[in-house]
Amino acid sequence: MTDIAVPESHADLLALAIAPAMATIGPGGEPQCSPVWFEWERGVIRVSLTTQRQKYRNLVERPRVALAFVDPDDMYRSMELRGTTTSIEPDIDNALLNRLAKRYLGIDAYTFDADGTERVVVSVTPSHVTTWQ
Amino acid sequence: MTDIAVPESHADLLALAIAPAMATIGPGGEPQCSPVWFEWERGVIRVSLTTQRQKYRNLVERPRVALAFVDPDDMYRSMELRGTTTSIEPDIDNALLNRLAKRYLGIDAYTFDADGTERVVVSVTPSHVTTWQ
Repeated sequence: MTDIAVPESHADLLALAIAPAMATIGPGGEPQCSPVWFEWERGVIRVSLTTQRQKYRNLVERPRVALAFVDPDDMYRSMELRGTTTSIEPDIDNALLNRLAKRYLGIDAYTFDADGTERVVVSVTPSHVTTWQ
Repeated sequence: MTDIAVPESHADLLALAIAPAMATIGPGGEPQCSPVWFEWERGVIRVSLTTQRQKYRNLVERPRVALAFVDPDDMYRSMELRGTTTSIEPDIDNALLNRLAKRYLGIDAYTFDADGTERVVVSVTPSHVTTWQ
């Protein structure tokens, strides 16, 4: 798994606490698209999902993904990463979820899930980058 | 073609000059996802595309679409519209493009396309709404 070449002009978008729209493919072949929290590390995007979400079921069956990152200060500067889900694993002790809660909400633990909610770490390896502006 | 029921709590998002991420399906079945300008009128979303874009070619072959609208002042308030491309027509005299230039840039005419660029009006009829917050 090697880093794809994210252009320097847009690499900063991956360090921002923004919520890119993540597109997946539904059971009937239709696109699904909604914002997600993410972190980026060494060429991999990680997203926390509950196993109740359609997005989770889509990724288990159809691992291909696209994410649209938009500069919150300039909506014309954006980047699409397309790639494949390379692992889906239990989020043990909500480790990823809590890192994301820190990054997005500034809190140490995310406590808003209903009892019994199962969380997974979805890792996406991008293979294709498109940038605008 | 009847209006879908966009919840009143999120209907304002359709009046904002924001750029929702639009997901389409590529030639290999992979999702594509990037921001677009849009207008909403009587239950139809209209988007201006050049015929050079992959997104245009995707929609000609595979008309299903999803769009993610996010409140620019509250990233946790968002809405997904899923639906189908119901027409793709030439944008005569760039009428839609210029309306969008007015809406997004405050200018009367969009003059940034290269000579010979062909524009189409893509009309999407949503059939399914999901909201968050």
